[in-house]
Amino acid sequence: MADFFAGSKARAAQLTPRFAKLWDSLEETTLGGKRFRPLMVWTAYKGLDGSQMLNAAQIGTAFELLHTAFIIHDDVVDRDFVRRGRPNLSGRYLQQAQAAGLPAGEAKHRAMSVAVVAGDLALFNAYRLIDRSEVGETVRTRLLEILDDAIMASAAGELLDIEYSFPDADISASDIIGMEQLKTALYSFEAPLKAGAVLAGANDQTIAELGKIGRDMGIAYQIVDDLLGVFGHEVGTGKSTLGDLREGKRTVLMGYAATQSEWPAIAAHLGNPDLSHTQADAVRKLLTTSGSRRNAERLARSFADQGLEGLSSAHIPEALRKRLENLIAAVIARTR
Amino acid sequence: MADFFAGSKARAAQLTPRFAKLWDSLEETTLGGKRFRPLMVWTAYKGLDGSQMLNAAQIGTAFELLHTAFIIHDDVVDRDFVRRGRPNLSGRYLQQAQAAGLPAGEAKHRAMSVAVVAGDLALFNAYRLIDRSEVGETVRTRLLEILDDAIMASAAGELLDIEYSFPDADISASDIIGMEQLKTALYSFEAPLKAGAVLAGANDQTIAELGKIGRDMGIAYQIVDDLLGVFGHEVGTGKSTLGDLREGKRTVLMGYAATQSEWPAIAAHLGNPDLSHTQADAVRKLLTTSGSRRNAERLARSFADQGLEGLSSAHIPEALRKRLENLIAAVIARTR
Repeated sequence: MADFFAGSKARAAQLTPRFAKLWDSLEETTLGGKRFRPLMVWTAYKGLDGSQMLNAAQIGTAFELLHTAFIIHDDVVDRDFVRRGRPNLSGRYLQQAQAAGLPAGEAKHRAMSVAVVAGDLALFNAYRLIDRSEVGETVRTRLLEILDDAIMASAAGELLDIEYSFPDADISASDIIGMEQLKTALYSFEAPLKAGAVLAGANDQTIAELGKIGRDMGIAYQIVDDLLGVFGHEVGTGKSTLGDLREGKRTVLMGYAATQSEWPAIAAHLGNPDLSHTQADAVRKLLTTSGSRRNAERLARSFADQGLEGLSSAHIPEALRKRLENLIAAVIARTR
Repeated sequence: MADFFAGSKARAAQLTPRFAKLWDSLEETTLGGKRFRPLMVWTAYKGLDGSQMLNAAQIGTAFELLHTAFIIHDDVVDRDFVRRGRPNLSGRYLQQAQAAGLPAGEAKHRAMSVAVVAGDLALFNAYRLIDRSEVGETVRTRLLEILDDAIMASAAGELLDIEYSFPDADISASDIIGMEQLKTALYSFEAPLKAGAVLAGANDQTIAELGKIGRDMGIAYQIVDDLLGVFGHEVGTGKSTLGDLREGKRTVLMGYAATQSEWPAIAAHLGNPDLSHTQADAVRKLLTTSGSRRNAERLARSFADQGLEGLSSAHIPEALRKRLENLIAAVIARTR
């Protein structure tokens, strides 16, 4: 990843020095995250006896760039200038524009323009990195198809998320799982695991099975994430545990709660941007007494178990099984 | 282009029916525009005796998708829900979300999320269309490099645009030309002309010369556009001739005016969002008496002439020369 950014910065500097700084900011955006996607690529590749680490790093970087593009564009839509407690990419440009004397509105507009462009660059280079990797024509084509599928799925998931936000929408917990799987789990777990397997020259059966394991793992991860978004601690997650409730985020927790008698009392608070800590505590209690919390924990556990079960296939070599077992255990451990 | 969208819609429908509708909206975004970029690809290709029209159409579509992505993302940053007098892509989703009963703020947020995703899809598929075209490995690699350069240039131009908007920036007319060339002219004229030439199997000299002609033509086009943005009629341009003044857009007109004695009287009105028609008329008069208008017209003419001169090269066959002469004439004719 460092190589990719060094090369891009050198190229950018030839156009205008300021442009090299944008690449600095892009690189900074990729730091401090969990780097889950490169880890997935690497895990599958290494576990299937891949030995061209440079290729694996390049493909891992491609998926991280895809994720970076989504994060940056999300922040544009949300008009967020802060991430993980520090100014994000647009936040840094906002500071700069304001320091230069630009009025606040204009400075924000400018900063978001930069962020949109930066996200486009990240997205484009995700493709470009795979395209330019020295992996041979057949592998390249398959990797690009996996990336393509991931972007299509993510877009479809985003649309479902919107449809589900309509007031008269009747959404079940399993609808929400399907939406989250498309929107996030596929590009974060399923696709990079498959990519690592393709890169290692695995057979179709192994690739398909790893995809399924990645999907189960991704859904488990997502449910745990939703649990942490309500019951987690701010320090651990790096985000406010009020955020999801204030936003009225539709999660598996809510999908289940909507079928319980506690629902009206819960729903009354969801999406209230001024929700207090006391009110949030009341909602948490109701989510617990209604069984929603336990249901979500059980679901996460059950998807994780499905993933573990998938690992028992004869197509998954021992070394890979061990690595993935540990990762699945880590996913579930986050709830504690 | 119709084939591309038909294929994408079929694929999208398999994920969720709603997703096929997004592709409808994307296709609609590409309708009604000038389709300059496919025209550039086609002009170079046809004029250099290319005969695989399907390939030319595919590469032309790729550049149109790139443009579509930029338009959609621009509208997100500007929070515009209308383009050419009709709801744009996010505008259509806004209506839908509001009709479903979503509160205005949430509906806007949702609509912009869709637009960001739609722009990402367009950008990504610009790449993908070239990648999947049946043009042979060497041509494909060169086409992707051209697209890559176009995106890098556009991002660099966007950054310069921001730097130039800082209050203490000291910007000349030629700085502005350089910025507009990177931000718009390169991806709209230079790159698609070169792509058409590469596709036709032209030699390096011809490709480079066509690139230079495209650059001159693109700058001329941009200057004419800036003139129309202040002196044009709303019907002809499809946009308000107050817009550029209210926005305080930095154009060649302003770069020149800033060196004239009329400047303080002009600058006082620029960027005033409530600028009246009477005030705008006063600014127009000052831009005329200061010589800014004539200077811009002269500059546009001179870049067009440079383009025409480039056409006299022995590397440009007669048929191509004729086509491009007509296009350059059309660019300049817009001022009248």
